[in-house]
Amino acid sequence: MLSKNQIKLITSLQQKKYRIKHNLFIVEGVKGVNEFLKSEFELDKIFCTDTFFHEISLDKVQQVTDVELKKISNLKNPNQVLALFFIPKAKIVDYNKFTLVLDGVNDPGNLGTIIRLCDWFGIEQLVCSNTTVDCYNPKVVQSTMGSLKRVSIQYSELKSYLSMSSLPIYAAIMDGHNVYEKQLEGDVIIVMGNEANGISPEILELITDSITIPRFGKSQETESLNVATATAILLSEFRRN
Amino acid sequence: MLSKNQIKLITSLQQKKYRIKHNLFIVEGVKGVNEFLKSEFELDKIFCTDTFFHEISLDKVQQVTDVELKKISNLKNPNQVLALFFIPKAKIVDYNKFTLVLDGVNDPGNLGTIIRLCDWFGIEQLVCSNTTVDCYNPKVVQSTMGSLKRVSIQYSELKSYLSMSSLPIYAAIMDGHNVYEKQLEGDVIIVMGNEANGISPEILELITDSITIPRFGKSQETESLNVATATAILLSEFRRN
Repeated sequence: MLSKNQIKLITSLQQKKYRIKHNLFIVEGVKGVNEFLKSEFELDKIFCTDTFFHEISLDKVQQVTDVELKKISNLKNPNQVLALFFIPKAKIVDYNKFTLVLDGVNDPGNLGTIIRLCDWFGIEQLVCSNTTVDCYNPKVVQSTMGSLKRVSIQYSELKSYLSMSSLPIYAAIMDGHNVYEKQLEGDVIIVMGNEANGISPEILELITDSITIPRFGKSQETESLNVATATAILLSEFRRN
Repeated sequence: MLSKNQIKLITSLQQKKYRIKHNLFIVEGVKGVNEFLKSEFELDKIFCTDTFFHEISLDKVQQVTDVELKKISNLKNPNQVLALFFIPKAKIVDYNKFTLVLDGVNDPGNLGTIIRLCDWFGIEQLVCSNTTVDCYNPKVVQSTMGSLKRVSIQYSELKSYLSMSSLPIYAAIMDGHNVYEKQLEGDVIIVMGNEANGISPEILELITDSITIPRFGKSQETESLNVATATAILLSEFRRN
């Protein structure tokens, strides 16, 4: 049976400040938990409605009822298991490696999609501004589909990080050079901005190359592309060469 | 004041069968409603918490309280206005026009993102299987950011639609030709499949060219790309040439 304190702890992990305090984050669902068990992430505890996970030491597995799982789950339809893993220590940033940089991406679904894209396109380092949504947010973890364990993600004060790198810094903006006409080669840093406001002015000052995905639709009214789809296209453009 | 019947009607429009029955769909928020007012969509009624929309005839505007708006809204934070528009008559499908085809895309957010992509890349015709989520679903309408009014969307029995066209039929699958090495030219049909199951077998039989976005990440575990980001990359590849 789950204790009141356990329920309180687990539900508190939906908030970043408690994830930091306890150094824990949540993974849900059989498939997701199995993926993390096979990774370098260290398990704290598994709560499950059936006797899965025979290979895990017994003190780390606790059986719960469906009703209890519903209490601690973030999902509308909880999927048999919820696990707590330890948040790993931040790795040291490599200043001279192909890197995607996010400046204030807010939406958990967008960050999750972008982490999957990094995994697909072999971008091993993702550096996020401290204003970007936390990658251990349950919605992010859920939408990365396991990619979270394969991409190194650091949160950093972007201005000082970018100042330390000698790589070209590309930024996706509205009126940059046509990305299809640019020579895209070698290791670079690509900066993507906030969903509504784009890249912040102090970061724009540091970019060396601005790029734009041209619009083919005729209407001037068409809004910009979503940040995750724009990232998809730009990473594809860098990798195709 | 809103009548009980009005509340019942409006909340019923969250379901497809009632949207079809009443031939109405919901648009929310000042910006969104203004976009649709400037389009070919015909307004039924506006419900708003303040006296916007001076240019609209009075019998089509009804002032409501914040509490009433909350009752009829689909949003966590309702934004001052909710409007009902008539679902337009389906346009006639053009069998020989550059077309994106969706075979069973389920997620409203994915469909909304794909409609925005069509708008951006000037794809004027989107043909969806009857198993694809309804484009007048409130979550789809909200996530299209106005693109819905600029892209012609038809729901159709895909097999007969594809049999009628003489264009090459490209399908995005897991083990097709490397998209970066393909000559992509002229008008074609591009088929994208369901989030979990891909393209259905009976549709796969009709394709003439299969394409794949190659994975650059080293891990064999990496899941496929999300359907919306894969669509972004493929439309970009067709347009860049």
